[in-house]
Amino acid sequence: MGHTDGVGFVRVDRRDDPRLRDYANLKDVTLRKSLEEAHGIFLAEGEKVIRRAVAAGYPVRSFLMTERWIDSLSDVVADTGAPCYVLPPDEMANVTGFHVHRGALASFARLPLPPVEKIVAEARRVVVLEDIVDHTNVGAIFRSAAAFGVDGVVLAPRCADPLYRRAVKVSMGAVFTLPYARMTRWYDGLSTLRDHGFWIVALTPAPDAVPLEECAVGRDRVALLLGTEGDGLSARWQRQADVRARIPINPAIDSLNVAAAAAVACYVLTRQP
Amino acid sequence: MGHTDGVGFVRVDRRDDPRLRDYANLKDVTLRKSLEEAHGIFLAEGEKVIRRAVAAGYPVRSFLMTERWIDSLSDVVADTGAPCYVLPPDEMANVTGFHVHRGALASFARLPLPPVEKIVAEARRVVVLEDIVDHTNVGAIFRSAAAFGVDGVVLAPRCADPLYRRAVKVSMGAVFTLPYARMTRWYDGLSTLRDHGFWIVALTPAPDAVPLEECAVGRDRVALLLGTEGDGLSARWQRQADVRARIPINPAIDSLNVAAAAAVACYVLTRQP
Repeated sequence: MGHTDGVGFVRVDRRDDPRLRDYANLKDVTLRKSLEEAHGIFLAEGEKVIRRAVAAGYPVRSFLMTERWIDSLSDVVADTGAPCYVLPPDEMANVTGFHVHRGALASFARLPLPPVEKIVAEARRVVVLEDIVDHTNVGAIFRSAAAFGVDGVVLAPRCADPLYRRAVKVSMGAVFTLPYARMTRWYDGLSTLRDHGFWIVALTPAPDAVPLEECAVGRDRVALLLGTEGDGLSARWQRQADVRARIPINPAIDSLNVAAAAAVACYVLTRQP
Repeated sequence: MGHTDGVGFVRVDRRDDPRLRDYANLKDVTLRKSLEEAHGIFLAEGEKVIRRAVAAGYPVRSFLMTERWIDSLSDVVADTGAPCYVLPPDEMANVTGFHVHRGALASFARLPLPPVEKIVAEARRVVVLEDIVDHTNVGAIFRSAAAFGVDGVVLAPRCADPLYRRAVKVSMGAVFTLPYARMTRWYDGLSTLRDHGFWIVALTPAPDAVPLEECAVGRDRVALLLGTEGDGLSARWQRQADVRARIPINPAIDSLNVAAAAAVACYVLTRQP
């Protein structure tokens, strides 16, 4: 295994080695949130997603992987020049607190987010996430939005972090390529969209809302608002929207999952000329 | 706390009490699969989903909950007459192996699945899952399929179990109301659909496939085939289908998540007359 003697590869013997602290306790969401915020870092997992983060220009702090992933990632390690810590599979789980399915992790420095104005200035279709708290849903929405050609995402102040590991993974790296920004204030957070001429669509399961296909016909710029799991969009944002729209569903079913609703709505709204 | 002295409510003191064995080690997927299969049971979590399982006619074996859920479920406990074991929150986690977010669990007896013929005989729109291995995806697909009015689901022999706890939870109980059956053989598994006059649509991200909107226009009965995460549908099933269809996406993105693709496809195919 001569690879681990090459430039950049460092065998690590102790799970409490301070160089591994970016990767500690990955299952503890509260702890991770404060650590990632304090140090301005995020993690990517698996070869494909790591490559996408590098390609998007995020600076690599380090890699952590088991022996068997070295071959497939050696070019990335060499190109970035960041240290690559190599651990036996058992020790990997001891450091991170769980079995790392895709066997390779990398820690990146965050980049400053652009202001909301920058995201919306050139966009025709944007998705706005009010308070989506589940990282899986945030990642899934980014993946679908990117697939359907949405131009950007705007987050309310309390929406979950798209660069949290689980969101990154579920998005398959779409969080690196789809531009996004975070509002500083929720209360008048939609004013930037209105100032830029967006037609604001609030998605809701309410039966009195307009069917989705009819809600934005002929509109040049469209912003789709998606609300939190369970309670949906706030009353304030629903009032401020130009139209409340619903996806027609079986009346016996209360609602769609927010990620499924987002996929359908992005499909419909990006198909319109 | 007089409730726990009422009929049906039983305080349990020891986490290894044999009456709690239906609920042991919920995080261990392999162990749970064999236990649930051997005993013909499944679990539902949270008040809403438990009520839906009862309403769908599944026989309750027992309930397990913390004190604070007794009030909201006491009518169900009384109606079913099944024992309800009550544990302090800390002990609940010790029995199940994780923090039960929605605080109430119930164990049910499975019912015999109908044959595939029964599902397809009266259906106009069915979804067929080849080898979806992720319980979250199976649950999400059931929820979307039910919401859009799909009439039934057919599972390939190796598709993950819709009654596994995670699938039940993500489906919000749609696995109880949307009829489904499991093929006994994968190889000629599509023949029942063909015999019943179904137009068979294989969903794929392949660029040479027909756009989804055009793939089934004017067809009376449509079966939508969805393949495994990652590799997609088998070559055999793609060949046996009447048409290979794709959801048009941004060429820079490799694919949609299978649950997002299912939501969009069910939406499009159930909107057509």
